[in-house]
Amino acid sequence: MTTVDAHTPANDSNERKPGWHKGYVPGPEGSRADLRVPVRQVHLTNGQHVTLYDTSGPYTDPTVETDVRRGLAPLRESWIIGRGDTEEYAGRPVRPEDDGLKHTSPRGGLLRGGDGDLRGLDAVFPGRPRQPRRGRDGRAVSQLAYAKRGEISPEMEYVAVRENVSPEVVREEIAAGRAVLPVNVNHPEIEPMIIGKRFLVKVNANIGNSAVTSSIEEEVDKMTWATKWGADTVMDLSTGRNIHTTREWVLRNSPVPIGTVPLYQALEKVDGRAEELTWEIYKDTVIEQAEQGVDYMTVHAGVRLAYVPLTARRKTGIVSRGGSIMAAWCLAHHKESFLYENFEELSDILASYDVTYSLGDGLRPGSIADANDEAQFAELRTLGELNTIAKRHDVQTMIEGPGHVPMHKIKENIDLQQEICEEAPFYTLGPLTTDVAPAYDHITSGIGAAMIAWWGTAMLCYVTPKEHLGLPNRDDVKTGVITYKIAAHAADLAKGHPGAQEWDDALSDARFEFRWEDQFNLALDPDTAREFHDETLPAEPAKTAHFCSMCGPKFCSMKISQDIRREHGGSQEEIESGMAEKSREFAASGNRVYLPIAD
Amino acid sequence: MTTVDAHTPANDSNERKPGWHKGYVPGPEGSRADLRVPVRQVHLTNGQHVTLYDTSGPYTDPTVETDVRRGLAPLRESWIIGRGDTEEYAGRPVRPEDDGLKHTSPRGGLLRGGDGDLRGLDAVFPGRPRQPRRGRDGRAVSQLAYAKRGEISPEMEYVAVRENVSPEVVREEIAAGRAVLPVNVNHPEIEPMIIGKRFLVKVNANIGNSAVTSSIEEEVDKMTWATKWGADTVMDLSTGRNIHTTREWVLRNSPVPIGTVPLYQALEKVDGRAEELTWEIYKDTVIEQAEQGVDYMTVHAGVRLAYVPLTARRKTGIVSRGGSIMAAWCLAHHKESFLYENFEELSDILASYDVTYSLGDGLRPGSIADANDEAQFAELRTLGELNTIAKRHDVQTMIEGPGHVPMHKIKENIDLQQEICEEAPFYTLGPLTTDVAPAYDHITSGIGAAMIAWWGTAMLCYVTPKEHLGLPNRDDVKTGVITYKIAAHAADLAKGHPGAQEWDDALSDARFEFRWEDQFNLALDPDTAREFHDETLPAEPAKTAHFCSMCGPKFCSMKISQDIRREHGGSQEEIESGMAEKSREFAASGNRVYLPIAD
Repeated sequence: MTTVDAHTPANDSNERKPGWHKGYVPGPEGSRADLRVPVRQVHLTNGQHVTLYDTSGPYTDPTVETDVRRGLAPLRESWIIGRGDTEEYAGRPVRPEDDGLKHTSPRGGLLRGGDGDLRGLDAVFPGRPRQPRRGRDGRAVSQLAYAKRGEISPEMEYVAVRENVSPEVVREEIAAGRAVLPVNVNHPEIEPMIIGKRFLVKVNANIGNSAVTSSIEEEVDKMTWATKWGADTVMDLSTGRNIHTTREWVLRNSPVPIGTVPLYQALEKVDGRAEELTWEIYKDTVIEQAEQGVDYMTVHAGVRLAYVPLTARRKTGIVSRGGSIMAAWCLAHHKESFLYENFEELSDILASYDVTYSLGDGLRPGSIADANDEAQFAELRTLGELNTIAKRHDVQTMIEGPGHVPMHKIKENIDLQQEICEEAPFYTLGPLTTDVAPAYDHITSGIGAAMIAWWGTAMLCYVTPKEHLGLPNRDDVKTGVITYKIAAHAADLAKGHPGAQEWDDALSDARFEFRWEDQFNLALDPDTAREFHDETLPAEPAKTAHFCSMCGPKFCSMKISQDIRREHGGSQEEIESGMAEKSREFAASGNRVYLPIAD
Repeated sequence: MTTVDAHTPANDSNERKPGWHKGYVPGPEGSRADLRVPVRQVHLTNGQHVTLYDTSGPYTDPTVETDVRRGLAPLRESWIIGRGDTEEYAGRPVRPEDDGLKHTSPRGGLLRGGDGDLRGLDAVFPGRPRQPRRGRDGRAVSQLAYAKRGEISPEMEYVAVRENVSPEVVREEIAAGRAVLPVNVNHPEIEPMIIGKRFLVKVNANIGNSAVTSSIEEEVDKMTWATKWGADTVMDLSTGRNIHTTREWVLRNSPVPIGTVPLYQALEKVDGRAEELTWEIYKDTVIEQAEQGVDYMTVHAGVRLAYVPLTARRKTGIVSRGGSIMAAWCLAHHKESFLYENFEELSDILASYDVTYSLGDGLRPGSIADANDEAQFAELRTLGELNTIAKRHDVQTMIEGPGHVPMHKIKENIDLQQEICEEAPFYTLGPLTTDVAPAYDHITSGIGAAMIAWWGTAMLCYVTPKEHLGLPNRDDVKTGVITYKIAAHAADLAKGHPGAQEWDDALSDARFEFRWEDQFNLALDPDTAREFHDETLPAEPAKTAHFCSMCGPKFCSMKISQDIRREHGGSQEEIESGMAEKSREFAASGNRVYLPIAD
């Protein structure tokens, strides 16, 4: 992308053109034909275009007909089958309790959902029938296993195109455990993406129904809505009824990796009584979800019995749901965590589906007062130990991080994580840099998120304005995603990620040259940018005007900067450019300046 | 403030009580009787209370009757007169062009406003008649002059109470030029505040009418609205008509220091033609505003002729309005800036009213690409030189900063400013950490603001969601102020400002103990916090319920944390506290946990 000259003829048109379209980039020369990486092509009014990373899936491609009842096309299926290391099998039968239903009704087959008080879409996902798949003879079929063996998979090629690096860099980062590429063999619908500090910072959005609200339809809609605005992965944190069926609908329609916390569903199966949880119930739930295609799972195996008392004197105790469930179990039985005890067996299961670990920080601080305390760091050391075990079993692994941390303690936090966990990708929630602003925790945490991502966090878990207060609606999901895309991109810039600044440069060029439509179309949220502009100057001509509502039409300061360029630094082309023509229109009244920021 | 025990009887009441009231803290023993520092006293349902810094002025005191037509009481008048170093004088006559009006009409007297197409309030401010005041024989009557002489003024005592430090610390910081206490002798209505890195980080909000929008009434309303939400100072950046009269209404009703950019009004007086500006017109405008009571003025004296060509190759040229006006003047005349040339005389004028300099960064970057470039740093070195001159003339001085700066260049920026300007207070706009999110620049800049304030910025100039797009309305002003209060408080925490964490601790205690009303009342924005909670669980009993919409009523995790505390760490009082009683209500269904953050 090059610097854009002002006022080519295209700029003079008042006609509103479509601002961008979905494009596809092929793999490198000699790559497979079915490797097409989606991008967002923004058309500028000067005839140039800007290519941006795109997470929105086939939904934004007008040439693809999507139908939530059918699900997305299984793009990766031939790659998975082609490897020949997996096999289909009958799978675990779906039971009423998978959906939180107690009564037994005549059901069966893998894809049958709950038949209780479902709202919205059908109880059973009506898409094409499928059998689950896993590694032959329980072998590891993970991207980590391939990378360690020196193999570059199509998925690795795909993300190499997406990230504009060589496939070998992708393989190396995965092999070293510094990056994960979450792709369950049972989720062939996704467009592969990679999470690691060497790559673009990623953003996760949480969705999920609860006991009191939300229908399946709403959750599927929230997922596509979140990815439209840039969510790189989505976690389904449903806790109410119909968990299994909701997840099936979400997975079959999701172009991005889906994460879950299996412990939530396991707890539903024992009617919310933590002490009745067992390794068998948990394991069965993990297999159930792995067969559906969950790409990564949060596992709170670091909450050990001995650490629970460390939280007793805290200001806010244990605030992680998974953490408190495991702490309750440990307390009730006075035994070591069954997740910790069975971690090797669990790792073998995950490796055979290529489910990625997200090792949960069950003892993360829930307040500024509790940040970076003994409980948190004791758990982190255990996560480091588990990370080593997971990698030995070829399970891709990332590590979850806080929480609430004041700015001056953030660097210590991530530096310790990177050291203890051998640079495994850090996946952090915020962190929130103060406790005093409920209703604005997307901002309190967006600050911490940008900083920790600059210092190495690979993926940021978003926080919405409703954090601590209620369940996010559609608007909250969008606000959360946009805020976190800002944090992620600010970090990409600060890390000097190749190409990151081209986006900023293109938008700043458009701003300097009064190409308003280009500014809108390049914006992270074109709709709101256009709406805010139109609130003050709604008329269509204002979109090409060389002024704005800040200074009014009487004067022009970009004009002054243009004068300076002409006199001192501009090339002959610049002097002779169409700028002079445009400027004359406003010259009579004194050429007032567009001012991005009043001072 | 101490940690709050759970569930004293007061907590069980469902009755909605007023959440806070305006209180006043007297000066130390032996202090003057009229020194009463306003605070916000938040009443907790457990009978305790939390004292917070308050910027809202008499408007939130139900015992004070305010009337915008009368103005606020001149609290400091007796202090100013008592010093005996100032005198009243006739003052400069107000002219039609002060309000941007060309026709001459019969008018006169200091307080007559414009009589053109005023909208909203009257043309002439109807409050008590007053004469302007200045230092006898042009002497310096600034807080800096007093501090250098070792004198502790009532204003210094006042801010010492406000900041919870000794008056001597205040005096030292001012004398060293590390802090400013902006108090024009003609603005006796304000409640003194201090700006310096040793003190709480402050926030400025911009208001101001423009050629196309806003009435005087709206601007006065925006000012009180901004201070209600925590703005520590307000800049009136009006550029349209009725500048003089609007400012008069704002000043007479403002409890916080008012800043301006005199160049804006001077430009109006020459009908927007930068080249027609003269030192005489500028000086006259400064005196006009100083007589009205403007507390600090942005002066772009660092934009020197030689620096203008340095901006020619920039991506976004000069984006500061003041900077581009001065650059245009320098270019038109090919002469050194009249502000730079007359800086010593200007300083004498400011010192005689105690107007504080805010040395403007006219060459600040307007895009990521231009951050920390040669033009910016050349100007900064000149600001350092001017800072030394200003202090020699006893003028309090702060230095304005960027702008657009990616995260990894922020520290370099402030470190250089602190070095070159001998730790003079830095007053920064953001900085914005990316250019790609118009409509969310309160967030792109809130990130940079929090970081730069942690590293030493004394005051943050807010940015609203409308930045780059249009004029902020009331909602935008609130969003901007709240975002920046978050950044400022996050920085206070990171700097370890004494007492800053007590606020977070009180809110976290309330959260842990399910004291919902206390959470709301302690929040930076109680209204929105309550509204968001009620969206999901509107009924009044939910305000005292031991659960929330995130998990529903079936289970309790704070309960689990309480169990842990009881078993491992709690005192006997805690075990016997009312918690047990409350918890039993939910025990039958499994004691589910309140979870601030889903994982």
